[in-house]
Amino acid sequence: MKHSSPLPPGSARFTDRFLAPRIARNRAVTIPSAVRKCEETGRFAAFDLKWKPGMPDKPHIYWDSDVAKVLEGMANMLAYEPDAGLEKQADELIDRIVAAQQPDGYLNTYFTVVEPEKRWQSLFDCHELYCAGHLTEAAVAYFEATGKRKFLDAMCRYIDYIAQVFGRGENQIHGYPGHEELELALIRLYRVTGEKRYLDLCSYFIEERGREPSYFHKENPLVNLWNLQAEKTVRQMTEVTGHAVRAMYLYCGMTDLALETDDKELLAVCERLWQNFISKRMYITGGAGSNHWGETFTHDYDLPNTQGYSESCASIGLCFWAMRLLNGTGKSCYADILEQTLFNGALSGLSSSGDKFFYSNQLEVTSSMYEVGHYSRHRQPWFDTSCCPTSYCRFLGQLSRFCFSESSDGVDIHIPVAAEVKSRCGFAFGIESDYPWDGKVKITVKSDGSYRLGIRVPGWCRDPQIRVNGEAVQQITSCTVIARQWHKGDTVWCDFPMSVELCRCSNMVYGNAGKVALKRGPVIYAFEECDNGRPLSRLLIDPAGEFTVEKSEIDGIFFASVKGAALEESFEDTGKLYFSGEASFAAKTFTAVPYALWGNRGGTDMSVWMREKH
Amino acid sequence: MKHSSPLPPGSARFTDRFLAPRIARNRAVTIPSAVRKCEETGRFAAFDLKWKPGMPDKPHIYWDSDVAKVLEGMANMLAYEPDAGLEKQADELIDRIVAAQQPDGYLNTYFTVVEPEKRWQSLFDCHELYCAGHLTEAAVAYFEATGKRKFLDAMCRYIDYIAQVFGRGENQIHGYPGHEELELALIRLYRVTGEKRYLDLCSYFIEERGREPSYFHKENPLVNLWNLQAEKTVRQMTEVTGHAVRAMYLYCGMTDLALETDDKELLAVCERLWQNFISKRMYITGGAGSNHWGETFTHDYDLPNTQGYSESCASIGLCFWAMRLLNGTGKSCYADILEQTLFNGALSGLSSSGDKFFYSNQLEVTSSMYEVGHYSRHRQPWFDTSCCPTSYCRFLGQLSRFCFSESSDGVDIHIPVAAEVKSRCGFAFGIESDYPWDGKVKITVKSDGSYRLGIRVPGWCRDPQIRVNGEAVQQITSCTVIARQWHKGDTVWCDFPMSVELCRCSNMVYGNAGKVALKRGPVIYAFEECDNGRPLSRLLIDPAGEFTVEKSEIDGIFFASVKGAALEESFEDTGKLYFSGEASFAAKTFTAVPYALWGNRGGTDMSVWMREKH
Repeated sequence: MKHSSPLPPGSARFTDRFLAPRIARNRAVTIPSAVRKCEETGRFAAFDLKWKPGMPDKPHIYWDSDVAKVLEGMANMLAYEPDAGLEKQADELIDRIVAAQQPDGYLNTYFTVVEPEKRWQSLFDCHELYCAGHLTEAAVAYFEATGKRKFLDAMCRYIDYIAQVFGRGENQIHGYPGHEELELALIRLYRVTGEKRYLDLCSYFIEERGREPSYFHKENPLVNLWNLQAEKTVRQMTEVTGHAVRAMYLYCGMTDLALETDDKELLAVCERLWQNFISKRMYITGGAGSNHWGETFTHDYDLPNTQGYSESCASIGLCFWAMRLLNGTGKSCYADILEQTLFNGALSGLSSSGDKFFYSNQLEVTSSMYEVGHYSRHRQPWFDTSCCPTSYCRFLGQLSRFCFSESSDGVDIHIPVAAEVKSRCGFAFGIESDYPWDGKVKITVKSDGSYRLGIRVPGWCRDPQIRVNGEAVQQITSCTVIARQWHKGDTVWCDFPMSVELCRCSNMVYGNAGKVALKRGPVIYAFEECDNGRPLSRLLIDPAGEFTVEKSEIDGIFFASVKGAALEESFEDTGKLYFSGEASFAAKTFTAVPYALWGNRGGTDMSVWMREKH
Repeated sequence: MKHSSPLPPGSARFTDRFLAPRIARNRAVTIPSAVRKCEETGRFAAFDLKWKPGMPDKPHIYWDSDVAKVLEGMANMLAYEPDAGLEKQADELIDRIVAAQQPDGYLNTYFTVVEPEKRWQSLFDCHELYCAGHLTEAAVAYFEATGKRKFLDAMCRYIDYIAQVFGRGENQIHGYPGHEELELALIRLYRVTGEKRYLDLCSYFIEERGREPSYFHKENPLVNLWNLQAEKTVRQMTEVTGHAVRAMYLYCGMTDLALETDDKELLAVCERLWQNFISKRMYITGGAGSNHWGETFTHDYDLPNTQGYSESCASIGLCFWAMRLLNGTGKSCYADILEQTLFNGALSGLSSSGDKFFYSNQLEVTSSMYEVGHYSRHRQPWFDTSCCPTSYCRFLGQLSRFCFSESSDGVDIHIPVAAEVKSRCGFAFGIESDYPWDGKVKITVKSDGSYRLGIRVPGWCRDPQIRVNGEAVQQITSCTVIARQWHKGDTVWCDFPMSVELCRCSNMVYGNAGKVALKRGPVIYAFEECDNGRPLSRLLIDPAGEFTVEKSEIDGIFFASVKGAALEESFEDTGKLYFSGEASFAAKTFTAVPYALWGNRGGTDMSVWMREKH
């Protein structure tokens, strides 16, 4: 059933001015700063298993996952570009991790030194299987990057032990992950090892989930099953529910399992969940999860702007899910949401400098906003629960997976960012473009041979044109396939004209009624105080006005800003909060910048949804 | 400095069709249902001090306050209207309470039977002095209603003991209430007993608050002082902060103290806090506190509609504070906010039936709203923390205090609700009106004599007229004083014409930009799903359209609804959440009902702020 595979990091070298600087900064800034934080906080040292009660830096149940994600980030960067220094650092860290493995294969710092008697006792909230999942993903990524088996073999031993402990057998624990992640990691492990037992364990975890009587309720009768996607079996699910990151990781695992086992029913469940998500519960930026109590999904159409949440990890998780559905089904509608998420809500959590992060990504912030916990309008260098910074470490090295797919006979270009591509089948080409800021794309073939070149035509594009060696392609579809004998120097020109669109929202979302969001190509724009003053709520966008696009950059990251016509509302200043005066309006030019780049230039107020002049 | 005193419950008998049914229902429904809940949950039995570890119904640190507030409600109803059955019930409850008093005067069920070793150990969050305050208020109210001293004497003993324990002396605790309330109760006790030591203790609590080093930080270094109005001394305060109910009770105590001691500086602090509140932090309904984490104030202009809080107790507390400033300063601007709060956010928490309650009073609710804890769109008969239901018990019997004041030579009518009034100076009159639904008021004098009649002219009224025995009063001011020799049968006619006004809000409140709220007289209107369908966000109010007013009732409570012209927005149904289609509009008539009465007829969606047609 599977159509294609995501293109691995080593097969594409980005040459663009938007993603490439972020990838370079991942190596130079993001990963090193995470390494430093892991050292400072004791996360690395936890693997030495020397902690004793009363000592500082007591290991935490999440910590292993943070270290694993940094390591996966190193692995992805090594796959992207060899780097002896980084590989040495990774090898040393792997030695330290593998040394913590217990004789039975178990590998978890917290439950080895802090509460060894509680191993597997609290699956619903102790992240034990979640940490195992991230360690497994890191081991697979490191094997794929370097061919070195030490970490992979250790993790196979750990998973083999987990497979003894968990299952439907009489002496096995009938539980499953409280925070999903291991499911999708098992598929990755199955794919590199070919060992069907890892697929079977994944299948057990996914199918056991939500069965009655609830395993989690045996652990604690007060557990909120809805929050954990465990209130029903996965095949009964019709709505995206609960903790948004857990949900995304579960749906990834379900999609993987459906594709590996050719399970059309399970794939249909995934596509049904996807439909519920994109038509009722997704922010226009690809943000997922409305609620900062519990970081969860809530109800259809509950998408508050200021009080929203949209955890960075959830949008990154959405990219992972969309990538799986795209490669599994070949439907370009998944690429539409994938790029909309990638260029907006997934990258907005990372500062232009590469070392500060949003945990939550609201669509409107103001100086009045009440910040609490991770719900903040200020980027932070680290968090106590530091999943988001470490998610960027592993995300940035594998951007090729979201932009391109490969199959035995060719390559699909989903997102035509400038890059040099060479697939495993031998097809090589270069892409020149300023995508996502410009829809003009030139592809120059660099290898002779008979290959299939798939070109996704973006769903937002109204008048796409494709020419091969100057000759127009007549039949352009959402995935236009050009299968032919290619010669070095052949060129494919694509033109996906971009215009500024005013997006409206169902008025079931009360807060967006009467408002528009600016979109150009896949990019959602934000209005910032530093460009437009405040309150931004006094600006009314003129839909009949002309828009002009200007090329600009922030900290070396290139982008297009949009200027246009607005009216600025004002009232006679009575000093009163409530009054009955009439508004007056003055013409004004606004400037909007890509949502992914907001919050890098000072100021506080920002808004995506703006009032519309009637 | 004090201008007048609130008119006590026994001096006014309401004859109107809005407040009078609620007062009657307080006796028939609200108080009996609270009594039943106090019995069922063990709140009354707690005073028998028989609880032992392992037994059910373990007393809670709040419980004494709930019982005290029910008792204060009984006292206020007895003052309003003698009732032998209710008085017997109150006497029995008082016997039970007083029997729980310890030899040293201490009276607190939780710290007598559950954690006796922790007496006065956790002022910041254990509500010990708060419970003492409510018991004191109840004792004062019962003495005022019946002349019986038993409860009052017991509370004097308790307060005398507290005055030994707390103070600036070497062997005293230098603390003060974590949840304010005792401060204002001490002033009430001082007023009925004339004992200056109660005034002094109040002064100590208020002046000690917020001094450095923080007493609360000695109890727990992690205490959020801002939340407790203890981050600075009261004289340094410039903004309303922290837990909204605590804040309101503190400001009441500060205002009382300023007035009793003729402390102009402290009064100026109170008026400064008031200005901050009404010009930057008050909902248009008189709601107070934006944030359902912690039930607190947040920042200027942070007034979200769906995600707001506006605890019922906070709006009731605002009525108490406004009443104090009004009587202390004689400025009618306080009456404007007082009536705006009374008729909207203070009464909205009580169902028309009298036995169901909102804890939070949002200005917009939708079917998508995520409910958690007390933050709900469904009225409940009781809560674990049941401050709001018991606040209504004590609030409804004393509505005279908010509508009228008396001084040695006459009466001020602040809110001309239909009533029979007889002040202690002998001035008697009847008011006929349908206020707040109609501004025509007829006052018929029922006693001969030379008295001063003050008539507040509402701030919202543009063309007020007053006639005495048919003769127009020439100089009408915000408090028009008619001092003369009155004769039985003299009449005063007031006409305060009401029209439907469209209120706008500072666009610093992002969520209200481009929206209007309907106000008629002091009444804010709400749009409900049961009248207008949903989503309400698709309706645009036509400010040029005519409004018609219709008389109606819900469960025997009379009110005026408003109908007017709107446009109904619709989009082609693409099934998509985000789209680029154009809206079409159809004419529609809307119906709006008083905010205080929303949520009594089924349905979920409700909105105060509505989009405006340009």
